[in-house]
Amino acid sequence: MTAPVTGGAPRCDRAAAPRCDLTAAWAALAGHYQAHGRELQLAEAFTRDARRFETLSFEAPEVFADLSKNLVDIATLRFFAALSDECALAARRDAMLAGDIANPTEGRAVLHTALRAPRGAAAPFNAEVHGVQGAMLAFADGVRARAAAGELTDIVNIGIGGSDLGPAMAVRALEAYRHPALRFHFVSNVDGHDIAPVLARLDARRTLFIVASKTFTTQETMANAAVARAWFTAAASAAPIADHFVGVTTNLAAAAAFGITHTFGFWDWVGGRYSLWGAIGLPIAIAIGSEAFRAFLAGAHAMDRHFAEAPFERNVPMLLGALDVWYRNFHRFTSRCVAPYHQGLARLPAYLQQLEMESNGKSVDLAGNALPFATSPVVWGEPGTNGQHAFFQMLHQGTDVVPVEFIAVRRAAHPYADLHAKLLANCLAQGQALMIGKTAEAAAAEKPPTAAAGIDRNVLARHRQFPGNRPSTTLVLDELTPRALGALIALYEHRVWTSGALWGINSFDQWGVELGKALAGELLPRLDASQPGARLGDTSGLDGSTAGLLRRLTRR
Amino acid sequence: MTAPVTGGAPRCDRAAAPRCDLTAAWAALAGHYQAHGRELQLAEAFTRDARRFETLSFEAPEVFADLSKNLVDIATLRFFAALSDECALAARRDAMLAGDIANPTEGRAVLHTALRAPRGAAAPFNAEVHGVQGAMLAFADGVRARAAAGELTDIVNIGIGGSDLGPAMAVRALEAYRHPALRFHFVSNVDGHDIAPVLARLDARRTLFIVASKTFTTQETMANAAVARAWFTAAASAAPIADHFVGVTTNLAAAAAFGITHTFGFWDWVGGRYSLWGAIGLPIAIAIGSEAFRAFLAGAHAMDRHFAEAPFERNVPMLLGALDVWYRNFHRFTSRCVAPYHQGLARLPAYLQQLEMESNGKSVDLAGNALPFATSPVVWGEPGTNGQHAFFQMLHQGTDVVPVEFIAVRRAAHPYADLHAKLLANCLAQGQALMIGKTAEAAAAEKPPTAAAGIDRNVLARHRQFPGNRPSTTLVLDELTPRALGALIALYEHRVWTSGALWGINSFDQWGVELGKALAGELLPRLDASQPGARLGDTSGLDGSTAGLLRRLTRR
Repeated sequence: MTAPVTGGAPRCDRAAAPRCDLTAAWAALAGHYQAHGRELQLAEAFTRDARRFETLSFEAPEVFADLSKNLVDIATLRFFAALSDECALAARRDAMLAGDIANPTEGRAVLHTALRAPRGAAAPFNAEVHGVQGAMLAFADGVRARAAAGELTDIVNIGIGGSDLGPAMAVRALEAYRHPALRFHFVSNVDGHDIAPVLARLDARRTLFIVASKTFTTQETMANAAVARAWFTAAASAAPIADHFVGVTTNLAAAAAFGITHTFGFWDWVGGRYSLWGAIGLPIAIAIGSEAFRAFLAGAHAMDRHFAEAPFERNVPMLLGALDVWYRNFHRFTSRCVAPYHQGLARLPAYLQQLEMESNGKSVDLAGNALPFATSPVVWGEPGTNGQHAFFQMLHQGTDVVPVEFIAVRRAAHPYADLHAKLLANCLAQGQALMIGKTAEAAAAEKPPTAAAGIDRNVLARHRQFPGNRPSTTLVLDELTPRALGALIALYEHRVWTSGALWGINSFDQWGVELGKALAGELLPRLDASQPGARLGDTSGLDGSTAGLLRRLTRR
Repeated sequence: MTAPVTGGAPRCDRAAAPRCDLTAAWAALAGHYQAHGRELQLAEAFTRDARRFETLSFEAPEVFADLSKNLVDIATLRFFAALSDECALAARRDAMLAGDIANPTEGRAVLHTALRAPRGAAAPFNAEVHGVQGAMLAFADGVRARAAAGELTDIVNIGIGGSDLGPAMAVRALEAYRHPALRFHFVSNVDGHDIAPVLARLDARRTLFIVASKTFTTQETMANAAVARAWFTAAASAAPIADHFVGVTTNLAAAAAFGITHTFGFWDWVGGRYSLWGAIGLPIAIAIGSEAFRAFLAGAHAMDRHFAEAPFERNVPMLLGALDVWYRNFHRFTSRCVAPYHQGLARLPAYLQQLEMESNGKSVDLAGNALPFATSPVVWGEPGTNGQHAFFQMLHQGTDVVPVEFIAVRRAAHPYADLHAKLLANCLAQGQALMIGKTAEAAAAEKPPTAAAGIDRNVLARHRQFPGNRPSTTLVLDELTPRALGALIALYEHRVWTSGALWGINSFDQWGVELGKALAGELLPRLDASQPGARLGDTSGLDGSTAGLLRRLTRR
């Protein structure tokens, strides 16, 4: 791992995986950008090529991906393919899937794909995976039976980061499949304003708490779990803790000391942000039941097969990952907006923020060399049509280009056909508007709005023009089923792997979270008189701002 | 309004307000950036100047703003002040507050500040404002009395954009002040997956619907209102619509046709994203009651006085607005992360996305000239500590600098003092970590984590280094009261005005939302067989992508 990266011919030696910028294909791609890619006019490209949509849209399991409104053409994709070859993406993908150490700075394999391999598949750890999965799903179905019998009404998941965002996102997305007798609550923040209103709504004897922390030491999760246990003991004094708290953890001793006897484990080859497929997915399994959870896994597995087997030219996660690199390093776009046109996917952007920015928000390559190019963009967004009434103004008429990712779902899980048609019309119209824009001349030819009747027509037209040529991707699902959601998430996972692999970074560590954690530990005794070694308000050794804020926050 | 901008000496003639880049102060600021600002090292600056925190932190009503961890020093602020003078910010602010046409492309005054002026103040439209406010607050208190009597349990606000984001954000933020017998629901998206699960939880006879749409024609709102009315009629056949639906609208005829007799109005000098202070704030008033709502207004009014009266050097919204311009146009940062360390402010980033990106996501100046510089950044974020376990990796170790805005609240409204101390320790530690960073040498000197024990120590150290010198602002509230929330929101409003005024744009129109709306209208009959003039699946005249997606979405 210490040899500097030198580039050159494709190698499947992960220790010196070719970094994108050190390849001949990168130089060729740069030439293509200068000669052509930079100036591509989307609307003209459609006029010129009647088959552009067919050429640049792709089928993956459960997900149809229209890339045709992006600043690429088929030649660009061929340059992407050459880059993929030279960076040995296929060999490195195969090595990861086979269980090689794909996370070298933590000395770990990366095998979240193994969590969704069917029983008996030739996948690593298949027996162990199915052992835990079977126990977890049986427990989930047992909880559902208790709910049906009126014994349980509320599930509270206590976890943060990967132990929160994935389950919270998926339970919300699969609302149509949720057990009708169960409400779900997700407590994550160490801020007591998170747990307090949740507890206020619960009946202790009908509540199940899931405490999800791999190490059972995560500060936020343990603080909230302690609050929950104290509340539970006060509210349901005779009921045993062990009947109302389960743990998702590998630290059985700490769980037992807490009072938890029922735990589900996972492995060091599953990163937190890739963990919803195993025991961390327990709230999802309780919400939708074992059969639907298996469909969720099967959807992800189908996408894994596509990722593992489809040639680059039709490999949707790989194409999207390469597109992300193209936009980041050549077009120099700094963020991507995710706009799911499905209210159930309201928390998908927050989930993707962790998946993408924690994976690829890095500045050094695998060998520790500083990178001379940009990596993870900011990923952000809100559901459409809500976003249209908030920030879409900036997407259409702002000074920066922000590629937008629309997610459309063909069939609704509600009976309001007219609403669904309006939703889809808006989704298509936004991508269309971003692309075609409107000239000042066209705006001037229109009848001005009443309110603006007094303004000079040509000045007003310049306020009402749209530059157009702003790129977007549209992903289409037939229906937001457990299977489709599983495939969609796996698609994003592999896409993030692809851009990370091209950039030559370790997408599976997160050293950037350590410093703040350590500093918080040093500050805590200065803020909390009840801490061991407390020295409330002590500002010694601190910078002026931290000291000043500390004084402000600790004053009476 | 048709004269091109020419720059030059300060003028308070709004029709040709000096644009920042055409002033001498801008050139001076550019020189300062090149000579000094670009290279400022924050940690060194604190060492050099023991009073840096005191010099660069400011008091505004209810909000303390620490700007000292930003890439500025006192000299930078003096350049900002010169720019403010030359751009005639004070005169233009005064003109706006006095009711001049500050939104010229729509021919409107901009007077959301009038909505929070106390009764009898010398503010425009004071009598009209207090007439509506009195009626609205009396109604809100009446609703609360009915809730206390068990007659009402649920309030459903149907609105979108400014008729949704502000009330939803504020009701959540003021959870500690919410009437305990009332639950609040916000339906905004035209996606039926938004309203369907809400209706499923309601008792029709104990529910009040608020239909909020200035024109009573907003597509999403009217579609959802129609669904709600049909559901209500079926679920509570004998109960009169007029007892369970109220309107916030100026279109009394349309509301009456819908079946609504009780309406609250507002005025064309209140923009949607500035409207929560008036009748659009009805859900807030119901949640917290008239007295607390008046405190919310009083907090905003106190900030208005600060904005109107404080000299630029201590005017917090103006300083923040100038800082935003500095970061956008000199440092070229493209986004800003808002991290409220209070779970109640979970929806503040979404609210600010509309406030800021819809206001300032523009590419032409007031006279219609194309701007040669960047305007609104992307504003995004999630509450801390949650964000720390998601995207903070990228903030600390990613390749782009993203200024972070921390919001800390000194006193909690819950009894868990240990959790609150942990929350504040984390908030301070994150800003500290972003600033001080960690060198590879320091990382190499530490004991490596167990999992990474096998890796070369120096390589690992390069993965564990932090560049530091990443800027942040910290806003501190003493407590998240209605008054403090009002002040905080008004602070943001005036800050957005300041950057917009410096950029010379109209922050109060939103022409960029029109094109997508028009195109959606053209697409709808192709997607909905029940529409007048429906032609399901017809793709004539469409670009290849829109046509292809339409076929995909309408196939059986």
